[in-house]
Amino acid sequence: MTADKIREARERLASVIQRNELDHSSTFSAMTGADVYFKCENLQKTGSFKVRGAYNKIAKLAENGGAKSIVACSAGNHAQGCAFAASAMGIAATIVMPKTTPIAKIKATEGYGAKVELYGDYYDDSYLRAREIERTEGAVFIHPFDDEDVIAGQGTLGLEMLEEVPDLDCIIVPAGGGGLLAGVACAVKSVAPNVRVIGVQAEGAPAIALSFREKKHISTENIHTIADGIAVKNPGDITMDLIEKYADDVMTVSDGEIASAIIHLIERTKLVVEPAGATPLALLLSGRLNVKGKKVACLLSGGNIDVSMIGKIIDQGLVSRGRKIEFSIQLQDKPGMLEKVSHILASQNANVISITYDRMSADLELGETILHIGCEVGGREHSARVAKALTDSGLKVLDNYRGK
Amino acid sequence: MTADKIREARERLASVIQRNELDHSSTFSAMTGADVYFKCENLQKTGSFKVRGAYNKIAKLAENGGAKSIVACSAGNHAQGCAFAASAMGIAATIVMPKTTPIAKIKATEGYGAKVELYGDYYDDSYLRAREIERTEGAVFIHPFDDEDVIAGQGTLGLEMLEEVPDLDCIIVPAGGGGLLAGVACAVKSVAPNVRVIGVQAEGAPAIALSFREKKHISTENIHTIADGIAVKNPGDITMDLIEKYADDVMTVSDGEIASAIIHLIERTKLVVEPAGATPLALLLSGRLNVKGKKVACLLSGGNIDVSMIGKIIDQGLVSRGRKIEFSIQLQDKPGMLEKVSHILASQNANVISITYDRMSADLELGETILHIGCEVGGREHSARVAKALTDSGLKVLDNYRGK
Repeated sequence: MTADKIREARERLASVIQRNELDHSSTFSAMTGADVYFKCENLQKTGSFKVRGAYNKIAKLAENGGAKSIVACSAGNHAQGCAFAASAMGIAATIVMPKTTPIAKIKATEGYGAKVELYGDYYDDSYLRAREIERTEGAVFIHPFDDEDVIAGQGTLGLEMLEEVPDLDCIIVPAGGGGLLAGVACAVKSVAPNVRVIGVQAEGAPAIALSFREKKHISTENIHTIADGIAVKNPGDITMDLIEKYADDVMTVSDGEIASAIIHLIERTKLVVEPAGATPLALLLSGRLNVKGKKVACLLSGGNIDVSMIGKIIDQGLVSRGRKIEFSIQLQDKPGMLEKVSHILASQNANVISITYDRMSADLELGETILHIGCEVGGREHSARVAKALTDSGLKVLDNYRGK
Repeated sequence: MTADKIREARERLASVIQRNELDHSSTFSAMTGADVYFKCENLQKTGSFKVRGAYNKIAKLAENGGAKSIVACSAGNHAQGCAFAASAMGIAATIVMPKTTPIAKIKATEGYGAKVELYGDYYDDSYLRAREIERTEGAVFIHPFDDEDVIAGQGTLGLEMLEEVPDLDCIIVPAGGGGLLAGVACAVKSVAPNVRVIGVQAEGAPAIALSFREKKHISTENIHTIADGIAVKNPGDITMDLIEKYADDVMTVSDGEIASAIIHLIERTKLVVEPAGATPLALLLSGRLNVKGKKVACLLSGGNIDVSMIGKIIDQGLVSRGRKIEFSIQLQDKPGMLEKVSHILASQNANVISITYDRMSADLELGETILHIGCEVGGREHSARVAKALTDSGLKVLDNYRGK
């Protein structure tokens, strides 16, 4: 793996990919004390950087006498990247996806002209089926990360970022299988050895972080994270070698930090980023990386997040910020009590979103009930005002209300 | 109001605003049969185009001997635009906001250095308070739209778009008070009279559309729309004169169409746009504008949408696409029935999100109950499979299940 391969990849990709130059963020610079830039690969064709590696690999195959067809296995961005790249080169593509793949991702992949085969309940089953197609149909298997041409394609991002802002101090890159991190680190160190390259993984899928620290190849059997794009049990051999050689550190962030970064990006930059793509900002906002006064680029690697996941992240975010709250009120079980409560909530401008009665709690006296009432409010101060108004009117608000 | 004023505004704004060039969308071009471009003012400083008009107005005041201070009234984008512009010119700003303004908008406005005064429950009360501050403190009142300098600032968008894609056939512009539409139409017609300029309003706040059609100034007493940025009862006099003179048509879109456009933008372009900003795409996707084969620019005017509103729009969108569904199942009221239902749902890969029992329905025989069970599924085909599996096992699935 050499910088020349990455420069070659750059030429192949020049006319194909979308160039979104590093974007300075005054909001996040103010929040972190660093000079923060975003590389928006969520706005890349197919919604992620993966098209770079896939296109470089497939275009090189075509140059070297060609492949009749390719096959890949992915439920995510690699599927769309391969489908787009094969279609651009006029090569037939079969993408094997697990049966549980969301319909939107299947449609998007088919939309780029690939044949989608749904096979198996898990990635591992689909993977075996893809290798079978490779053997039986002579299709070239495109590995999602452990392939020098794929890595070289992803590495073009390192060259681009340094061209756009030559005096960067640090680049933060998401890592799952490690293709992106390996490519960017190799590219950056070949041009500007003093620029730090930091990998970031999800706490619940930390194979590369563990391997980097222990200096040996570690895989993780049980992984659990919302960042599906980097939920990889077993990183690549080629990628790990490059990461050990070129990366400066590999750190982790929690799912909560990732969710909070996604909401921040929606609110402040109006950008939709998938969980894996939000990990660099999550790391920056955690304060665990010392970058005060430095120029830092966050590689927002992709934007392919299902809207139902955005909905769940927003819901959780609203609860954790005190914008959604549930009051539990112990009441006498008699007419007029709901009217009393709802009058106070209306006068305090709290919007009711859910309501249930509990008459089965062990702590209740006969003739009492607990009303659980969910509300939208402006924030913690507002909910404290509402709680006080309820208490002031003689109602017994139980202390352990949710979302406090 | 002249094109020269808009060109002057352009010079004033050049070093201040963010330039986001028209972006071609292959996805929406394929969906509509037009060549679709987006002008992303959601990515503008302060999150909307409003900063253009506010800055032009305030900078011109400063040039002409200066104003000690300005005052404005707004719960939205005009507030942030004025606060940013005043701070950039070193002028004190007071923004009067209704007490019901979300805390995030208050903080954002204060973040640009303005003094925020919360006054009154409705815009009209806050407006009167702002005019009082104008009289008593000698602050210059900055009108959100009915002001030539404000209109000229917004009009700079017309010049920019024609520079970026000179052979546009049509430009679609959101309209509330009419400042943006008036400015853009005036600019466009002065440079390229053959380019069509179409205004778009919310069905529930159609004053400009009505006025344009009837050729007289009509205001609407009762307005109701999710597009708060263009929910204006009474458009301006200056703006209406310009719109009648220069716009080709003013059309309306429903809240449902707006919500669907917002979800489409999140999914396909990874951009967050506020309801008002999504109206041009909503109109385009409605098919009511004949633009097949034409080059069409949609002005995505802003991105300041509360995350809780995004959450609600996504929830509604998931229901209307059959991704969230509630099955109502009439059961015998005896042990084991929930286990039977949940076994079928699990084997069909449907994720349970809510569950309630109804034992009070008038149609029920004694010993029966209705189970309402909400599920996340992949889409309509998936939910039909689930319903069939429930029915095949002898369960009585009631026909009128929600989300069908």
